[in-house]
Amino acid sequence: MLKVGIIGASGYAGAELLRLLQTHPNAKVVAISSHSFEGKNITELYPNFNSVYSEILCDADEVVEKSELIFAALPHGLSEPLGKKCLELGKKLIDLGADFRLSEDDYKEWYGLTYSEPELHKKSVYCIPELHRGKIKNQSILGNPGCYVTSASLALAPILSAKAADLNSIIIDSKSGATGAGRGLALNTHYTECNEAFAPYKIASHRHTPEIEQNLSEIAGEKVVLTFVPHLLAVNRGIISTCYVTLKERLSEEKIRKIYEDFYKGEQFIRLLEPGKIANLKYVKYSNYCDISLHLDKRCNRLIVVSAIDNMVKGAAGQAIQNMNLMYGFDETAGLMMIPPAF
Amino acid sequence: MLKVGIIGASGYAGAELLRLLQTHPNAKVVAISSHSFEGKNITELYPNFNSVYSEILCDADEVVEKSELIFAALPHGLSEPLGKKCLELGKKLIDLGADFRLSEDDYKEWYGLTYSEPELHKKSVYCIPELHRGKIKNQSILGNPGCYVTSASLALAPILSAKAADLNSIIIDSKSGATGAGRGLALNTHYTECNEAFAPYKIASHRHTPEIEQNLSEIAGEKVVLTFVPHLLAVNRGIISTCYVTLKERLSEEKIRKIYEDFYKGEQFIRLLEPGKIANLKYVKYSNYCDISLHLDKRCNRLIVVSAIDNMVKGAAGQAIQNMNLMYGFDETAGLMMIPPAF
Amino acid sequence: MLKVGIIGASGYAGAELLRLLQTHPNAKVVAISSHSFEGKNITELYPNFNSVYSEILCDADEVVEKSELIFAALPHGLSEPLGKKCLELGKKLIDLGADFRLSEDDYKEWYGLTYSEPELHKKSVYCIPELHRGKIKNQSILGNPGCYVTSASLALAPILSAKAADLNSIIIDSKSGATGAGRGLALNTHYTECNEAFAPYKIASHRHTPEIEQNLSEIAGEKVVLTFVPHLLAVNRGIISTCYVTLKERLSEEKIRKIYEDFYKGEQFIRLLEPGKIANLKYVKYSNYCDISLHLDKRCNRLIVVSAIDNMVKGAAGQAIQNMNLMYGFDETAGLMMIPPAF
Amino acid sequence: MLKVGIIGASGYAGAELLRLLQTHPNAKVVAISSHSFEGKNITELYPNFNSVYSEILCDADEVVEKSELIFAALPHGLSEPLGKKCLELGKKLIDLGADFRLSEDDYKEWYGLTYSEPELHKKSVYCIPELHRGKIKNQSILGNPGCYVTSASLALAPILSAKAADLNSIIIDSKSGATGAGRGLALNTHYTECNEAFAPYKIASHRHTPEIEQNLSEIAGEKVVLTFVPHLLAVNRGIISTCYVTLKERLSEEKIRKIYEDFYKGEQFIRLLEPGKIANLKYVKYSNYCDISLHLDKRCNRLIVVSAIDNMVKGAAGQAIQNMNLMYGFDETAGLMMIPPAF
Repeated sequence: MLKVGIIGASGYAGAELLRLLQTHPNAKVVAISSHSFEGKNITELYPNFNSVYSEILCDADEVVEKSELIFAALPHGLSEPLGKKCLELGKKLIDLGADFRLSEDDYKEWYGLTYSEPELHKKSVYCIPELHRGKIKNQSILGNPGCYVTSASLALAPILSAKAADLNSIIIDSKSGATGAGRGLALNTHYTECNEAFAPYKIASHRHTPEIEQNLSEIAGEKVVLTFVPHLLAVNRGIISTCYVTLKERLSEEKIRKIYEDFYKGEQFIRLLEPGKIANLKYVKYSNYCDISLHLDKRCNRLIVVSAIDNMVKGAAGQAIQNMNLMYGFDETAGLMMIPPAF
Repeated sequence: MLKVGIIGASGYAGAELLRLLQTHPNAKVVAISSHSFEGKNITELYPNFNSVYSEILCDADEVVEKSELIFAALPHGLSEPLGKKCLELGKKLIDLGADFRLSEDDYKEWYGLTYSEPELHKKSVYCIPELHRGKIKNQSILGNPGCYVTSASLALAPILSAKAADLNSIIIDSKSGATGAGRGLALNTHYTECNEAFAPYKIASHRHTPEIEQNLSEIAGEKVVLTFVPHLLAVNRGIISTCYVTLKERLSEEKIRKIYEDFYKGEQFIRLLEPGKIANLKYVKYSNYCDISLHLDKRCNRLIVVSAIDNMVKGAAGQAIQNMNLMYGFDETAGLMMIPPAF
Repeated sequence: MLKVGIIGASGYAGAELLRLLQTHPNAKVVAISSHSFEGKNITELYPNFNSVYSEILCDADEVVEKSELIFAALPHGLSEPLGKKCLELGKKLIDLGADFRLSEDDYKEWYGLTYSEPELHKKSVYCIPELHRGKIKNQSILGNPGCYVTSASLALAPILSAKAADLNSIIIDSKSGATGAGRGLALNTHYTECNEAFAPYKIASHRHTPEIEQNLSEIAGEKVVLTFVPHLLAVNRGIISTCYVTLKERLSEEKIRKIYEDFYKGEQFIRLLEPGKIANLKYVKYSNYCDISLHLDKRCNRLIVVSAIDNMVKGAAGQAIQNMNLMYGFDETAGLMMIPPAF
Repeated sequence: MLKVGIIGASGYAGAELLRLLQTHPNAKVVAISSHSFEGKNITELYPNFNSVYSEILCDADEVVEKSELIFAALPHGLSEPLGKKCLELGKKLIDLGADFRLSEDDYKEWYGLTYSEPELHKKSVYCIPELHRGKIKNQSILGNPGCYVTSASLALAPILSAKAADLNSIIIDSKSGATGAGRGLALNTHYTECNEAFAPYKIASHRHTPEIEQNLSEIAGEKVVLTFVPHLLAVNRGIISTCYVTLKERLSEEKIRKIYEDFYKGEQFIRLLEPGKIANLKYVKYSNYCDISLHLDKRCNRLIVVSAIDNMVKGAAGQAIQNMNLMYGFDETAGLMMIPPAF
């Protein structure tokens, strides 16, 4: 059993990782830490773990020491020094934060920080498994993608890969459940403010924008600049991305479908819905699936791709485990075949 | 006091009309009807009316007979014969359904019906007050606009009026609360199916599409074809439309703002939000306001307009009263100055 | 017009007062204050007030100075010194907090504080209008009741007044919407913690317990000790209290009903539901009504009374206005005849 | 692998059974039926099963024929003839409906039906595993308990078993998520009617009452008559029962706790919460746990027990699997160790 630890286990992503890892056949959580709740038992914060998993939250150093693989769910800027330390000690790191996702230029422009450890980035890999699986070699650090990024990139990668899209036309209108905002208290996620409310936020300025553009540019083979607008949805979990792209020339629905089928052939976590069906976040919650549905607006020659993921699973903890599975040569689906409940 | 009646008072739009009209200074509800619940007291269906308004639901003929002005909230196809009857009896009709909204060509294409009473349409007017106020003359029939249509048309009219928009680029991504689907039972609005769920529906095929295009084409002075994608939102009330339009040439935020300010100068129900603020359906619920916020994606030279309305008020019953006020020369805001609650 | 001011206008109760007072025919808000947000415009905190009411939040002293009547929505312990000041300046005070609700013994036991201004309490009155209307004389200070207290006291007062209840048998199982917890951030009202959750809290230890007992003891003419268990409900507004009381002897449903009808004869805000109907918070939201339904469990000779109020209106701001109306001899319903929406 | 079939797989309980059984180590679903949706693929009704489980809904006879054990989730009255058939064919039946739960007297009084196959009831057993595990012998028919019944019986069994309760004092105030009302459309579970609403229903007249009384009477050793009031909660899943019982004499919290600890010693699905903690349905959702918290109202000498279950799991499908495990000698927890998510 691989010894894994979680730094930042008191946050939602960390707690979800902890939950999912309980049933993993090849990995065992040996330590968990929290900056804010050090010394408390995880069951104090998350009573769902009662009689399932009981452990005191320790400090980050102890996690690094005890674990072979460290998952970190930290605010940006904190994972670089952690990565350095892991490397020195011969440990591996999967970072659920933003530090290992972007080029230095983008990181600087959107996060206002330069790399503190530039050398580290040469030894790290960024990976949405369905798009970058082949890039994982022997790296010790893996940057786990953002939730919106996963949702949008998986929706649009095939049509961009087919060179069929007008690259100036891309609009991603995403809606995310409130767990995406984390466990930290804020007015917009205060119950009475969020309930029976709905609005976009960080319009055309969300930090996931450059990460989506990076993924799509790579696939398209040329620079993609797009409009990304996230909305806060009064549900606990799930992201729907409604993605709009004008086609360079007319394509039939069958042709478009074929492009997607070929692109995702053999992928176990991608469910391309049948014609006429529409992706709904309801049917992917608590699972690692990404549901994708394709819709052609013939009147406007515009393709509309709807993707649905659970932001905490395929958008965070599940994908991190999928990446662990790839890094260590485990079955890619190990610990991840949760069946989504319908209700 | 103007004697008004409501045909279809058992549905949500009808019941909301009934509620709002209770405080109108110039109109009094004298009869209400329901096809499905004839003979029942409205308080049986809507206990909120207990000790406020008690009346037996009669049949449509009785409403026509007793009223000077009839509001109809009926399935499409039923308002044309009703309109004929009203005209013959010298009554006026405000139709909240689709029969008097579209050209015959569009009506045929999107609803599969031809006009049954073509002459009637020459005597009717379609009116979003902020856009068509001047068209109301002495018509006896008024087609009240669709909810999504109101939201999208008000969001985009100014920029199209200024000839600043690339007319091929318009995308309207709307999200509506579940009252928009009405009181009729259906699986997608069954509580456990709708709660903690989210998805688009009728993608690029919703019947409000031609009505939005009709309004925007008229304003733009040329044919507009656009992509409209509605989503079902698990809240009771409200529509957010996130509207995307590429600008023909670069415009500053100030310039765009000026276009909107000038266009809506003096409008009492349009609240153009200050720079940096974002429209949220939370702040317009239970009111006749339409909140609009403007956002420029400079990287893509794309304008994003967010509009928020209460689908049952500005999107249906409130706007119908506003239209009544215009038809009869009452103060346009009479009975409509409800202050939205924040929570 | 009576000049009124609101101290603590940034909280939910204060903001609701501000909203409701906009339409009052005899009172006008001349100043609003907030300790935490002094200097901000109320529209910054509550954008629903845009184009309705715009005012800078000042400090409490300014409110006292400008107003004839002051409403205070403050944490307990702060209203006593304020009351003293009001009295010295010849102003009146309606306190929505706990300082003027309880006997000193109860206040000490449940809040851990002694009266700081004992003399003040002789000049103050506590008032649920339907129960204590007659006590209002020329007092300058009025203690506005708690939300749960209003709901439970109105449910049980008639049967206790009739001496028909076993006073050892009273159990009040209440469920309140999240506005009851206020605008302050807390983990249990964080959206993702409160949504799709449900539990009681402060079981048999909530501070509203002695206030309910005080009201019911007064009515019963002897000391009542009861069990009160509140629950946090994932809705924005409303309280349902399901109240259980064993009857001293068997009574018919008709007899019980008659007791309630007689007790609430002429009350405009009490809606005693017809036999077979059940009170639902849905039908009182945004209104000052208290709906009451009566249910007899013949098998156990137990009366079950269900009461529904809007915690922010009849449970706070609305009742405060009703009390103002009584204090100043205005029509008791002035500014309070809002019709609850059904959806 | 035991061959199991599900009759009534299109309903919520059936679909949940199907989902949970996918991971069972000893049982395999070989056929599923639906009266209303025969001929449709289950993935049409429940797209969550896409790429997980694909099967056409057949008729009930085919399920009986193919299976060794049949689970039935049917309206009451239909399981008796089915049971007869199963017995004749040497199959076993676990009935999630009401037919095998009650004595004939109670069945007649509360359901208005007599037993159609009286002999069958001698060969059947009713089982909440934690209370009746020992009764399972070689019966071929098992009556699976009601959801509210499970919640209330587990909450009160220990204190009644200890003869410490005043048997005339029992009140059970339960609140259930909307899946409890099933997939069938009804106005009270229409989204806009159920959302932001709350009320009790079937006050002191719900059909689960005699089943709770039957369980508690058996434990107490004398006839228990109690008041049971269910409420409809606007969440998808979960039941909270707040149970009130007056103690015959004063008992310390430690003593009461000891009673519960002893009673549930070794039970893997009962989580008795630590002093000071309160059961919340949030922490048992999607799991087979029953969380129980104990609270003593010393002022009234009243014990308040709060129990939380997932109505679809421990309250229906999970408990049915637990019963299957017992009937067949599988590990009692097989297929049931799902970890509840916290959010």
